[in-house]
Amino acid sequence: MRISELADATGVSIPTLKYYLREGLLHPGRARGATRADYDDTHVERVRLVRTLIDVGRLSIDRVREVVTALDRPPESRHLLLGTAHDVLRQAGGSPPSETMTARLAALGLPDCVDSPASTQLAQTLSAAEEAGWHLTDATLTSWFAAMKRVADADVVPELAAMPPGDALRHAIVGNVLTDPVVIALRRVAQEALSAERFSPASEHQASR
Amino acid sequence: MRISELADATGVSIPTLKYYLREGLLHPGRARGATRADYDDTHVERVRLVRTLIDVGRLSIDRVREVVTALDRPPESRHLLLGTAHDVLRQAGGSPPSETMTARLAALGLPDCVDSPASTQLAQTLSAAEEAGWHLTDATLTSWFAAMKRVADADVVPELAAMPPGDALRHAIVGNVLTDPVVIALRRVAQEALSAERFSPASEHQASR
Repeated sequence: MRISELADATGVSIPTLKYYLREGLLHPGRARGATRADYDDTHVERVRLVRTLIDVGRLSIDRVREVVTALDRPPESRHLLLGTAHDVLRQAGGSPPSETMTARLAALGLPDCVDSPASTQLAQTLSAAEEAGWHLTDATLTSWFAAMKRVADADVVPELAAMPPGDALRHAIVGNVLTDPVVIALRRVAQEALSAERFSPASEHQASR
Repeated sequence: MRISELADATGVSIPTLKYYLREGLLHPGRARGATRADYDDTHVERVRLVRTLIDVGRLSIDRVREVVTALDRPPESRHLLLGTAHDVLRQAGGSPPSETMTARLAALGLPDCVDSPASTQLAQTLSAAEEAGWHLTDATLTSWFAAMKRVADADVVPELAAMPPGDALRHAIVGNVLTDPVVIALRRVAQEALSAERFSPASEHQASR
């Protein structure tokens, strides 16, 4: 298909598609003469992925380029594959985890920080919260980790083992990007449900019954 | 203190402080002549809050203005207070929840969408995931809601009932802003732990034992 047809199929404008091509987010079409190129279903799929990462995941263009580069050359090991997914999803920047934080997380039985993007992200987000004056107790962290294992149970599915590495990597990245907001929304709904139980006028009136 | 001292105390530059004053994120100091104003600890605290909301929460300036406006005029009811917190934290935009999605969530025993920013956010994030081709089963949603109730148990603490409304509202907003990234990082660590159990070369070798 021509670039105008790719635009129709994806709902993304031609100037934006040309920008994606220049920035390396979208692989070139097959050349047809000096000024025309042909695009196919792999381009449609890639454009949709890029839009998901930008619109829902709020990833920067640089981060999206890292994702598509990783997808084109995925690691062979299933386990490294998840590390790759976590690495591209993690917010850029942040100082390396402190030894104190690493030791604290290890003492809680959480995986340690060496070579794990996920553990680094945990140490960094916890440090950021503490620097802003918000302390999470060890009991809360342990309880939250158990809760998030229950969430992750639906993420790390056996089907991943049978997928080609590129598909498994896309599954891990897109799954997190699309469902992190759902997990956070469920946290809010759960807060509201508990707040209604604990603080609503009805429960205050009924507390003495 | 002078604005230069407020800058020293908070690590935020004078031009940025003046920008916060112009944008209504920071309340004016007490006037001392035509060109000078005096600032106090309430300004230090407010500037730190604004930085947390911008740096960690990645809230827009408009959203931060909504937060500080709400903090200055908090609702009296504890329960409405959480709704106010959820409303300012929710991503702007998005279409209203569809009737199908509202009915689906109600059938699962999740609170319905009427007048609840949290339920609206859940319906919107789920619809966005489905539009991008990612379907979550009812079983996964139910299990995730139970997991997030465990997380929320540490959020909706009895101490909230004793706080002045403004403090309780700040607690709810800052708590979510600072710990949403921790919850998401714990999800990644949990994925990694489960992936190691299920897919690592060692577990593959040991699977037949």
